[in-house]
Amino acid sequence: MSLTSVLDRINSDLSAATDRLLELLRIPSISTDPAYKAECDAAADWLVKDLNSIGIQAEKRATPGHPMVVGHVGGENTDAPHLLFYGHYDVQPVDPLNLWSTPPFEPQLEETPNGTVIRGRGSSDDKGQLMTFVEACRAWQAVNGSLPCRITFFFEGEEESGSPSLIPFLEAAKEELSADIALICDTSMVARGVPSVASQLRGMMKDEFTLIGPKIDLHSGHYGGPGLNPLREISKLIASFHDDETGAVAVEGFYEGVHEVPAEILRQWKGCGFDETDYLSNAGYTVAHGEKKYSTLEQQWARPTLEINGLWGGYQGAGTKTVIPSEAHCKITCRLVGDMDPDALRAKLRKHVEDRLPKDCTVKWDLDLDGSPAYVIDTTRPEFEAARGALTDEWDREAVFSGMGGSIPVAGYFKSILGMDALLIGFANEDDAIHSPNEKYDLKSFHKGIRSWARVLDALSK
Amino acid sequence: MSLTSVLDRINSDLSAATDRLLELLRIPSISTDPAYKAECDAAADWLVKDLNSIGIQAEKRATPGHPMVVGHVGGENTDAPHLLFYGHYDVQPVDPLNLWSTPPFEPQLEETPNGTVIRGRGSSDDKGQLMTFVEACRAWQAVNGSLPCRITFFFEGEEESGSPSLIPFLEAAKEELSADIALICDTSMVARGVPSVASQLRGMMKDEFTLIGPKIDLHSGHYGGPGLNPLREISKLIASFHDDETGAVAVEGFYEGVHEVPAEILRQWKGCGFDETDYLSNAGYTVAHGEKKYSTLEQQWARPTLEINGLWGGYQGAGTKTVIPSEAHCKITCRLVGDMDPDALRAKLRKHVEDRLPKDCTVKWDLDLDGSPAYVIDTTRPEFEAARGALTDEWDREAVFSGMGGSIPVAGYFKSILGMDALLIGFANEDDAIHSPNEKYDLKSFHKGIRSWARVLDALSK
Repeated sequence: MSLTSVLDRINSDLSAATDRLLELLRIPSISTDPAYKAECDAAADWLVKDLNSIGIQAEKRATPGHPMVVGHVGGENTDAPHLLFYGHYDVQPVDPLNLWSTPPFEPQLEETPNGTVIRGRGSSDDKGQLMTFVEACRAWQAVNGSLPCRITFFFEGEEESGSPSLIPFLEAAKEELSADIALICDTSMVARGVPSVASQLRGMMKDEFTLIGPKIDLHSGHYGGPGLNPLREISKLIASFHDDETGAVAVEGFYEGVHEVPAEILRQWKGCGFDETDYLSNAGYTVAHGEKKYSTLEQQWARPTLEINGLWGGYQGAGTKTVIPSEAHCKITCRLVGDMDPDALRAKLRKHVEDRLPKDCTVKWDLDLDGSPAYVIDTTRPEFEAARGALTDEWDREAVFSGMGGSIPVAGYFKSILGMDALLIGFANEDDAIHSPNEKYDLKSFHKGIRSWARVLDALSK
Repeated sequence: MSLTSVLDRINSDLSAATDRLLELLRIPSISTDPAYKAECDAAADWLVKDLNSIGIQAEKRATPGHPMVVGHVGGENTDAPHLLFYGHYDVQPVDPLNLWSTPPFEPQLEETPNGTVIRGRGSSDDKGQLMTFVEACRAWQAVNGSLPCRITFFFEGEEESGSPSLIPFLEAAKEELSADIALICDTSMVARGVPSVASQLRGMMKDEFTLIGPKIDLHSGHYGGPGLNPLREISKLIASFHDDETGAVAVEGFYEGVHEVPAEILRQWKGCGFDETDYLSNAGYTVAHGEKKYSTLEQQWARPTLEINGLWGGYQGAGTKTVIPSEAHCKITCRLVGDMDPDALRAKLRKHVEDRLPKDCTVKWDLDLDGSPAYVIDTTRPEFEAARGALTDEWDREAVFSGMGGSIPVAGYFKSILGMDALLIGFANEDDAIHSPNEKYDLKSFHKGIRSWARVLDALSK
């Protein structure tokens, strides 16, 4: 039976597949930093070449930002569905670099108490996960000479920088990219060894502002006392964003569109194998620090957040400088749930800040990105049960429908622009340190991930 | 009469004197940054050479940090007092560099609505002021072949970085450096054209801490909600340092040792020519932002402060990064008055922070510098009246005894270690932008400053 031969082929080809991934990981495709534009381009070229090498018609598509990669294959078997697979080849910045134990773009295999890991930026988010699907197709092709159904490959290079080109591209390529269902591999498992299909994702709203006080940097001897200090003022503003009693966000109207999780879903989540202690201790926490009246899992999957991702102003060098700086800066992201509207939320956040500006202080808003609403997936479609079964077979453990703390905006756009539901299946673990120094991907996730996709392809094309 | 010839000589030599200052300003002697060690050394060498060129026996003295420059001259006229002149040759860092209209270490003369200025880092603080005294001596020497009294020159290279070597050096060189009175040129005039002798200086306490939350940088999708964010926590701590109602510092015991200003002194200050509107608008302020129950002048001269000079954590690069950082950092300086004890204050500040640390959050104190208490000068000595008279003659305006918002710790050490009072006479203006981009020194301050010192030398040696 062909699936078995494909799985055998995957096992025998694993070390070659790993070498291919290491090659891709060596390309520092940091999309948010313009300095790495050429590297993002190189990563896209690498993928085009790799897809072509397994008989997929792929090419690079230019955008105002980093290029998309689009590939097509199959279509002989017209009873089988048309699948679109999505992944992203760009990665997060690597700072603080000094906390990496190995160079972020010199990936290597490493033995750990949890088994062999692939260490390097992008190994888990998302190059390693993206390649699990490509390698499954490679093995299937090698064994059967063709793929079991029509597949469109769609790789993005701006996922880590707000996907500015995604919406226009989807709108322009609507016909080409519309399939029966989308497969996305950019999520993690609820717990080590628990195969998971994401059923809801949080949305995202990003903003950034500069608080301006004195018109120049001042000497704290001449102006210390009478002088307004933007570092103190920005701290007061940030402190005002939350209610310390309840842990809730204190921005007026912030929770509009947020709904309580239905009791039935909460029951499912209780049994999903999420290990709270493990999850918290991976980060060095002993308790959860979010909204006091919600469980840790709800805080992560079903509640919105207002997070400060960057804060700076004044002197950061060696020694001291007796300065009252002219400016202070703050980067913010909010995670959205339910029906929260990103644009309305941005307006509420900005009003909160502007209402609290002291005399002689002005604010400059430095970002104007699109936000993405949260996305709750319709899991009643047959493909979801089929995929769950395939994953259950591979992992010898009942696969679960889980929530997600992260934001995969593309899933929402596939629905709103292409009218396409998405199957989000990922093999990352909580301790992968994605977006952090020393990011890794378990070799087991890579290996069983490839095998999982082979089983899903088989199940969906029957 | 020799003073007149000296003043004439100063006038005719002004452009050569300016060229000498520009030469010294070209040396980037930033003391707080180890990267500029060689440049600090070069500035010291330049001064030794310049003093020698006018017959002063000067040499560089090594310290664990940047070298001191010590020079001796005169002593024939034993009726005249022995004077010690102090200035510092090190300068502040130049960041943010992009706000400079000309390169900070390529000084130049520039025409402005307030007349010609010397633009460049250190032009006002303190190389330009230091050279006013040296040039006065050069002119006197040229006209009379000798100086009117015994003078010891003492130049420091660590004033902008906490003077770590100063106390041990003073203790070791006690005999050599003890004089009848110290002259210090590192202060500003109360208002443009109002010659000022400082009668009280604020002290200084510096501290710095790192707030540590999660053990690694975290993904705000995985941990946003349950995760403690050090950027939010440090903001809450900084917000807790002040009482917004009164504008007072809210650290317990902060005001121990602070005294109200005597009514008589307050009366003097009212008539000193301080222009509040001008002072505030130079910084872009419309109101004073300090303790509400005190005047702007008291806030600057007679009240203590707790100032944030640097604050940073998380992602500061282009674009966004959905990170919950592991660390946040904060640099603090406090200005001290009256009998406030720097060490006791440091303990109170640290207790304030440690008492408010949330669960899963730790603090690391990154500095351990000596603080310096405030210094109130005994202005009843005859030298003070003599100097005030000399300044009044040069500026055609009654010279005033003024307070000072800044800290000149050396004046306090001269008193406590060498038993020597200090005459603090400076010619800087509020708009000199010292410690800021585009620092400048009025050519008029430089010229009349040199002439002022010639008159003071004359008055003190009669």
